[in-house]
Amino acid sequence: MSGWLRVVGVGPGPERWITPEVSALLAVASDVVGYQSYLARLSVRVGQTVHGSDNGDELARAQHALSLAAQGARVLVVSGGDPGVFAMAAAVMEALESGPAAWRALDLQVLPGVTAMLAAAARLGAPLGNDFCAINLSDNLKPWRVIEQRLRLAAQADFVIALYNPASKSRPAQVHQAFAALRSERSASTVVVFAKAIGRPDEELLVTTLGEADPSHADMRTLLLIGASTTRCIERAEGAPFVYSPRRLEA
Amino acid sequence: MSGWLRVVGVGPGPERWITPEVSALLAVASDVVGYQSYLARLSVRVGQTVHGSDNGDELARAQHALSLAAQGARVLVVSGGDPGVFAMAAAVMEALESGPAAWRALDLQVLPGVTAMLAAAARLGAPLGNDFCAINLSDNLKPWRVIEQRLRLAAQADFVIALYNPASKSRPAQVHQAFAALRSERSASTVVVFAKAIGRPDEELLVTTLGEADPSHADMRTLLLIGASTTRCIERAEGAPFVYSPRRLEA
Repeated sequence: MSGWLRVVGVGPGPERWITPEVSALLAVASDVVGYQSYLARLSVRVGQTVHGSDNGDELARAQHALSLAAQGARVLVVSGGDPGVFAMAAAVMEALESGPAAWRALDLQVLPGVTAMLAAAARLGAPLGNDFCAINLSDNLKPWRVIEQRLRLAAQADFVIALYNPASKSRPAQVHQAFAALRSERSASTVVVFAKAIGRPDEELLVTTLGEADPSHADMRTLLLIGASTTRCIERAEGAPFVYSPRRLEA
Repeated sequence: MSGWLRVVGVGPGPERWITPEVSALLAVASDVVGYQSYLARLSVRVGQTVHGSDNGDELARAQHALSLAAQGARVLVVSGGDPGVFAMAAAVMEALESGPAAWRALDLQVLPGVTAMLAAAARLGAPLGNDFCAINLSDNLKPWRVIEQRLRLAAQADFVIALYNPASKSRPAQVHQAFAALRSERSASTVVVFAKAIGRPDEELLVTTLGEADPSHADMRTLLLIGASTTRCIERAEGAPFVYSPRRLEA
């Protein structure tokens, strides 16, 4: 039997957000490759080989998966969220581009999933209801000045801004720099949301403003949303307010 | 039994992209509200009332859904893709904000789905592998100058740009204006993708460049992707090339 590779996402949290397409592949894959903590969420089949790794070297993980498929394995590369948004799909493409020519004949597909930004937005109401952007705040692979320039231009464009990977133990300072850049471009009343561990048992949503927000609140499991100038809250009879960005902008 | 409202997305195409959470709700809703052509994809249960409408007045559709729920119905508002991305969630929030105070006590939730941009990206490889933005090109609800300014700033930020609703029968000219703005900011060799009817039987992917692209190729079922300066293709042994945006940007 010839091998194949599927690059999939299992959503940000619970099984109810995993597409049937991905669940079906989990049942037939011979090998499952991914970051340990994503794999821990999945039910593994008897006979399946699980290749867990830490969150470090995505490129090495992608190369490993491609070589397994080239040897005839039925390989699933698993990301949290959607594989194409700051996850494994780009790493697999990089490995493919720089790898043996034979890899280009592999049966390789990427399959979509629910990314954290969409799950967080749903919990809140409709914060992405107008034009938006998504920025990976990690400078592991790109210079900080590019990130800061993108933040400034996104703020000037009045996009709703989703910030992935806002902070980690090795990068505690950058989210503070990001807030400083945003505060110089946007009003203090701009709605800001810290969405932590969305869909997980320890989910936590904090709705605040750019003026009041404490950037230290962000960690590696947080998605940050910075509202547009029009983004606002709707109080409810009970519970947290909804957050939404109206579709209509006045001329 | 008291009513509720769930605002859901059924993805851009096939059932294999509908989350189990949404499928489960389809089985228990008393009323299903949505654009006719999305509802046509779903299996309707005996006894369920389907409220189809044309694609025109989202606000009226949202108000209708809220009033049904207030009367005790178990209502599903169905969008294609994800409900929070240029779909029904924002319209429901607008209707809620301007509606009777009693609506704010309703059991109302938005649930995430797979938006067209993610499905198209998966088909291509990893075009959203670096920072990106999503812009609704329709000027039905916002001035064209805002859209054009956002296009220019997004191009300057070197975002990958996803354009939703690039053209319709009543708006054939704007996609040409959008390309004119993009061509003044980005190189002619920029990768451009027309992704039509992704996941449907008549799916069509056209990979071209900003210099070569014919904007007339876009219609209301097309998602347009404009690459970043680093977005590139990987030729395969057979079939269409992959398109991806490397994670790494040089200093």
